[in-house]
Amino acid sequence: MPVNLPLPKREELSPVSGVELGIAEAGIKKANRKDLLVIRLSSGTQVAGVFTLNRFCAAPVQVCKAHLDWVANNGSEIRALIVNTGNANAGTGEQGMRDALETCASLANALNLKPEQVLPFSTGVILEPLPIAKITAAIPKAIANLTDNAWFDAAQAIMTTDVQPKALSKQVHTPDGVITLTGICKGAGMIHPNMATMLGFIATDAGFAPAVLQALTKEVADLSFNAITIDGDTSTNDSFIVMATGTSAIKINSASDGSYALLRDSLVAFARELAQMIVRDGEGATKFISIEVVGGKSNAECRLVAEAVAHSPLVKTAFFASDPNLGRILAAVGYAGIADLDVSGVQMWLGDVWVAKDGGRNPTYQEADGQRVMQAQEIAVKIDLGRGTAEQTMWTCDLSHEYVSINADYRS
Amino acid sequence: MPVNLPLPKREELSPVSGVELGIAEAGIKKANRKDLLVIRLSSGTQVAGVFTLNRFCAAPVQVCKAHLDWVANNGSEIRALIVNTGNANAGTGEQGMRDALETCASLANALNLKPEQVLPFSTGVILEPLPIAKITAAIPKAIANLTDNAWFDAAQAIMTTDVQPKALSKQVHTPDGVITLTGICKGAGMIHPNMATMLGFIATDAGFAPAVLQALTKEVADLSFNAITIDGDTSTNDSFIVMATGTSAIKINSASDGSYALLRDSLVAFARELAQMIVRDGEGATKFISIEVVGGKSNAECRLVAEAVAHSPLVKTAFFASDPNLGRILAAVGYAGIADLDVSGVQMWLGDVWVAKDGGRNPTYQEADGQRVMQAQEIAVKIDLGRGTAEQTMWTCDLSHEYVSINADYRS
Repeated sequence: MPVNLPLPKREELSPVSGVELGIAEAGIKKANRKDLLVIRLSSGTQVAGVFTLNRFCAAPVQVCKAHLDWVANNGSEIRALIVNTGNANAGTGEQGMRDALETCASLANALNLKPEQVLPFSTGVILEPLPIAKITAAIPKAIANLTDNAWFDAAQAIMTTDVQPKALSKQVHTPDGVITLTGICKGAGMIHPNMATMLGFIATDAGFAPAVLQALTKEVADLSFNAITIDGDTSTNDSFIVMATGTSAIKINSASDGSYALLRDSLVAFARELAQMIVRDGEGATKFISIEVVGGKSNAECRLVAEAVAHSPLVKTAFFASDPNLGRILAAVGYAGIADLDVSGVQMWLGDVWVAKDGGRNPTYQEADGQRVMQAQEIAVKIDLGRGTAEQTMWTCDLSHEYVSINADYRS
Repeated sequence: MPVNLPLPKREELSPVSGVELGIAEAGIKKANRKDLLVIRLSSGTQVAGVFTLNRFCAAPVQVCKAHLDWVANNGSEIRALIVNTGNANAGTGEQGMRDALETCASLANALNLKPEQVLPFSTGVILEPLPIAKITAAIPKAIANLTDNAWFDAAQAIMTTDVQPKALSKQVHTPDGVITLTGICKGAGMIHPNMATMLGFIATDAGFAPAVLQALTKEVADLSFNAITIDGDTSTNDSFIVMATGTSAIKINSASDGSYALLRDSLVAFARELAQMIVRDGEGATKFISIEVVGGKSNAECRLVAEAVAHSPLVKTAFFASDPNLGRILAAVGYAGIADLDVSGVQMWLGDVWVAKDGGRNPTYQEADGQRVMQAQEIAVKIDLGRGTAEQTMWTCDLSHEYVSINADYRS
C-alpha cells in the first residue's frame, strides 16, 4: 500500500488554459485499459524537457530531443504530446525509431501539425516491438475526447504497475495575478521493471521565454524527480516535461523578473510533491524517508552521501524493520566517496534525536528514542558533514519483502 | 543455504610452516563460542595488507596500517595477528583506539614482542565499546593452544553470521619446489550488517621481498576480494592480509624472478576461490552469478558496468526469480556511467545463449533458452562493450526474500 498517498480528487485537478487531454484504450498490452494519452497545446506554449541519461535511451526519448531541437532551430513550437503505456519502445533499434516517428506523424496528420511539433513518450516492456498499428488506430479516439478537464484520466492512462494515479494542482498567487500548476506523473526510475520509466508532466498557464523555461526545468528536475530513488536504477525512458502555455497574465522573460523567484519556488515545491508521490507509491514501500545532507563543501558531495544512504539495501531493510541501525547509515556515509571526509566532524539525527555526535554514538543517545522515530511511517534522517555550507535532500522508501516479491514475480 | 559451498575438510587444510594458530572463547558477545583467534608468525615472515576505504574505518584498521608502517620504517616485522568477533570496534572514537592498542600490547607482552609487531582485527557490532577486559583475559588461553594445525578452528573463530566456515589449501608445484597456500575468510562487505566486515587471511611458506608482496597483495585483492559484491556496501573493517613465512625454498625478490608469474597466478586463483566462497555464503543467496565484461576501453569502465549490473536490485531479483529479464541488465549497462557508450556495439550472453545483439534483442534468441540458463544455480553473464580490449569480472549473488528477512530481523 502506498505510504500516505491519498487518491487525487478529480474535482481538485484544475484545467490549465491552453492544454487539452484525450485518452483512449489502444489495447497495447491489455484490453479494456486506458493506455494512450494525447495532450494538445495551444499555440504560444513553451515546452522544456529533461530526459534519462541512460545510454540505452529509448527511441521516443531520442525523438523528443530531436524535435525539441528542431522547433527551437526552426522558429516552430511543440503543439502535442503522445504517451503510450504497455511498451517502452526501448532496445528496439531502427524499427523502434521508425515507430516513434510514425507515431508523431500519425498524430500530426490528425491535428494538422508537422511531425516535429509532436513529442512521443512510451513506457512498458523493453525489447519488444511497439505495436504501432494499434497506436495509430487509437489516435482518432483520443483526439475525439480532447478536453481540458481530463487530468485525472490522464494520470490513470500513464500508469503501468503504479498502485495509484498521481496528480496535483495548485494555484500560485503572484503580485501580477494567479497562475495554475497542474501535473501528473508515474513510476520511479526502474522501479517498475519491464514497465520501466518515470514520467512527469507539469502544465502551467504562466508564460516563459524559452531559455528561462529550459534552465528552470533542469533546476526543478534536479531538486525533485532527480532527488528521488527507489532502487537506484535509471530507466531507459525517464522524461520530465514542463509545458507553459502563457495564457495567464504572467510572462517571465528573465530570471530577474519580479515574479520569477516566487514561480521558481512554487514550481520546485510542486514538482517535489509530485516526485514524492512516486516514492510513496514505491514498490513494496512501507516507509517514506527523507535524507537531508548538510554541511558539505559542494552539493555534489552532499548528493553522493544522500545517494549512498538512500541506495544501501542494508539501510533500507533497517528502515523496513523499524530498526535504528546507526552503524549501517554511518558506514554508508563513510563509503559514499568523499575521500578526505573527517568523520570526527559528522553529526546525525533521526527525526529530532541526535544519534551520532562527532562521528561516534552520541553519549546521551538512548536506543528507545531512535526506536520511537523509526516506528513512524515518515522518517527524516539528517546528516551534517561539518565541512561546508552546501546541502542536498533526497527521498526514498524502504526495502521490503514485497519489493522482492513484486520484482521476482513480475514476469512469471 | 550456501550455493555449492561444501564444508571445508579439516584434514585437507595444510599447515603452513611458520604459522601457528590459537583459538579461545572470550565471551565477547555470546558465551561458549570461539570468538578470539591469535596467529603467531615465525621471524622472517613478510606481511602485507589491503584495507577498507570506508572513511569510518574502524580503530583496528587504523592500528593495522600504523603498525605495518612502523615495522617497515624500523626494520622490524609483524609477528602476530589477533582477531575478535562479536564487536567491530568501529565508530568508537578515542576509546576504540586505546582498546585496539591495548589488545596489541597485551598479546605482545605475552609473546615477548613489541606492540607494533601485532596486527589487530575486529568484526561484529558497530558503535559499541570493545569489551577489552574479556579479550585480554582470553589471550593466554588462545596462546596456550597455539598449533600449526588449527586452520579449520580458525575459520570457525572468525565467523559472525556466516552459515559456514570458509577455508582453502593448495599446493603449488614450481620448478624450484612446492609451496603451500592456506587461507580463511569470512563475511562479504557489509553483508553481515552490524556484524560488519569481510576478513581474508592467506598464509604461504613462499618468501617475498616486502615491496613485491605489497604490490602483489594489492593486485590479488583487486582481482578477488575487491571483485565480489553482495549488496554493494563497504564495511568499516574490511581487511585482506597475506602472510609469507619464507620457510620454503622459494624466495621471490622481484616480479621478474622465474617462479613469480606462476605464484602470482596461483595466488590470484586461490584468493578468487576464497572470495567466491563469501558470495556463495551471501545472505539469502540462492544463485552464484559471474558477470564478465569484455571489450572495454579500460578495466575501470568494465568494472563500472560489472558493478552496475551486480548492484542492481532489479537484476538481482530477476536472478532470484530465474527470470531472463534482459531489459534490466541492458538498462544497468546503459546507466553504468560510460558517457560515450555506443549501445549498438553491445553484445550480451546468458551462459552460452547470445541474448542481445548490437544493442537490441538477438533476433534468433528464444526466451526458452534464456530460461534454461537462468534455472541453474550458477549463472554466467557476459557483456561485450565492443570498444576495446579491457575486461573485468565480478561475482555476486541474487537478492531473495531471505536477504530481506536476515537484514530486517537481525537486531530484533
